[in-house]
Amino acid sequence: MKKILLAIAAIVPFMAVAQDADPFSNIDELIKNTRAAETNIPGAEFPRTDSHNRVYFHYKSPNTQALTVDICSKKFEMKKDADGFFNVVTDSLPVGFHYYFLIADGISVIDPLTTTYFGCSRVAGGIEIPEGKEGDYYRPAKVPHGQVRSVQYFSETQQKFRRAMVYTPAEYETSGDKRYPVLYLQHGMGEDETGWSTQGFMQNIMDNQIAAGNVVPMIVVMDNGDVAEGFNPAKGGMNEFGASFYDVIIKDLIPMIDKTFRTKTDRDNRAMAGLSWGGFQTFNTVFNNPEVFSYAGAFSGAIFGLNTKTAYNGIFNDKDFNKKFHYFFLGCGSEENFGTENLVKQLRECGADAQFYLSEGTAHEWLTWRRCFNQFIPHLFK
Amino acid sequence: MKKILLAIAAIVPFMAVAQDADPFSNIDELIKNTRAAETNIPGAEFPRTDSHNRVYFHYKSPNTQALTVDICSKKFEMKKDADGFFNVVTDSLPVGFHYYFLIADGISVIDPLTTTYFGCSRVAGGIEIPEGKEGDYYRPAKVPHGQVRSVQYFSETQQKFRRAMVYTPAEYETSGDKRYPVLYLQHGMGEDETGWSTQGFMQNIMDNQIAAGNVVPMIVVMDNGDVAEGFNPAKGGMNEFGASFYDVIIKDLIPMIDKTFRTKTDRDNRAMAGLSWGGFQTFNTVFNNPEVFSYAGAFSGAIFGLNTKTAYNGIFNDKDFNKKFHYFFLGCGSEENFGTENLVKQLRECGADAQFYLSEGTAHEWLTWRRCFNQFIPHLFK
Repeated sequence: MKKILLAIAAIVPFMAVAQDADPFSNIDELIKNTRAAETNIPGAEFPRTDSHNRVYFHYKSPNTQALTVDICSKKFEMKKDADGFFNVVTDSLPVGFHYYFLIADGISVIDPLTTTYFGCSRVAGGIEIPEGKEGDYYRPAKVPHGQVRSVQYFSETQQKFRRAMVYTPAEYETSGDKRYPVLYLQHGMGEDETGWSTQGFMQNIMDNQIAAGNVVPMIVVMDNGDVAEGFNPAKGGMNEFGASFYDVIIKDLIPMIDKTFRTKTDRDNRAMAGLSWGGFQTFNTVFNNPEVFSYAGAFSGAIFGLNTKTAYNGIFNDKDFNKKFHYFFLGCGSEENFGTENLVKQLRECGADAQFYLSEGTAHEWLTWRRCFNQFIPHLFK
Repeated sequence: MKKILLAIAAIVPFMAVAQDADPFSNIDELIKNTRAAETNIPGAEFPRTDSHNRVYFHYKSPNTQALTVDICSKKFEMKKDADGFFNVVTDSLPVGFHYYFLIADGISVIDPLTTTYFGCSRVAGGIEIPEGKEGDYYRPAKVPHGQVRSVQYFSETQQKFRRAMVYTPAEYETSGDKRYPVLYLQHGMGEDETGWSTQGFMQNIMDNQIAAGNVVPMIVVMDNGDVAEGFNPAKGGMNEFGASFYDVIIKDLIPMIDKTFRTKTDRDNRAMAGLSWGGFQTFNTVFNNPEVFSYAGAFSGAIFGLNTKTAYNGIFNDKDFNKKFHYFFLGCGSEENFGTENLVKQLRECGADAQFYLSEGTAHEWLTWRRCFNQFIPHLFK
């Protein structure tokens, strides 16, 4: 390991002092007025954020011709100085979590200074842009903490081992024979079963809401929706993408969870929700199996061209829909265009009591989904 | 997310057929005769391994001048063809897990096609080199599976939230009031609390050994040893490096674990082990707190210059040492030079019954530590 350590120092954050007005001309001053991103690896001083939610990137790489930061779908070309340092300050970025990449002489790579996350169908860099008081709901607080458990199981359907991440509430450890309702919670396209507990901070949101008495203690199951590779029309239509998950959840996952954990196993105590493609998978799972679930949520759901009158055997026109489904939630960000509001309108025209939540100022991003989750969970199992 | 997807395709594994003897001249044939590494991200065809444990790397990156694979402390420069593809085949590599990096025009970055791991004081690429039958002990099998739980807690000592990874055996869920012994298990320098359950496959080794009846069901706690940044002599000597962990484990972690889980809390039911720097931390923790632990293991322990006669108040000369410590294990790889065998000799001269295990053909790497763990655990709590 020692030998490897010597070989990896090609990009190093470094301090230097110069005279011009460029913020990087006085690195000590820059460091004093900004803070290292909480998503950095231990000891990494850059990237840093300032009070305007701008991000400062700073690398030494003399042999590189061009270095660009690719963040929030926007590219920021870095300026190289005579000593081989690359610097750039971004615009003010939306608060919350964003994937990002570096493009080094044409190759899109991961910043060696960042913690990594599975997103965008690959391993990606990530940065948490701090926000003000709002963020308290997703930060850890001095309340009883639940656990996020990695649970390995053999899928008979797929004849392979799979992994589910399972949140259990703090009281689960000491509540004896008490049984709990279960929420199945799905990530989006290009992400995996780790998304909600790393990018989403779902465990902090649950812990805080349960401690505040707003949310019923529940188990939350996050599995891989088989959409990590990203949608490829050459491999089939939208309905095929991630379709392998439908048998897994019904035939393998739910039975394994009900066998392993102290769950309540009736439909009144089972919910499902998902973000983006996971929202589409939630619709397909819940409304094709109404005997299994009684709550549904789609956060920026990738639900396009749904004929609400005929879909799922006309379930949304069922006069008993609002009795059968205790809470039906759709949310999205005001800055994205996923057609959620229009879908809600159509669902309501059918008679389905779809609740709508608009996340102000956010796009197709994790802050939208943290907010949606926070809005959704108080309505479950009451 | 869609927009980001379009921007990340600069490195793409690609198929091509040509006529010369180069293995990359017929990619279809190459793919037929090799297999994608299990550490690749979903859908990534490269890197691939062959039956000789050679690795095939293959990228398209026309704008890059030079691309080098840096793996197992050896650099393999890739050959660029006229179409902008870079190719290389490594030598036969040791079986097991290895960190690796790409060097693109002088920058050391992470291969975008690999799952990532925290190692080498940063996020690193990783590749699992398949081996023959031996590897069965660390692969998942159709046996009851334990869980690896992420447990967040507030450290009073450090006044911040920390995370421990906690393995609970399969039977824990249904064993009522039964209480379990606990092994505290530490990673090495430049790694973190995720190392043992991702790079080390400790949960598979435990599941398989417990199922075979060789190992007593136990809880295994893996926390962050505060050595992620790597040793820096400018910040203090060896004894200072990671020293912040000693108060954490004794004052915060053990009490939290004993409060949260159904543990046996006496010294006869508490063990500690660690790899490399974690082995050094194990010595410092166990032998400075003999009232807390009764088992110790060091796998390739970074224990240099120890005066075995005087260290820890002369504990190794204590005539009751072998009564007080029920099992004392030191292991290392035959291809590394960490002085373990000599240390064992000195410990035995003091009278301490140090058991020695030599991992044949392995160096300072995860295969050594998987083997050491597999050797160590059958001796605990019997």
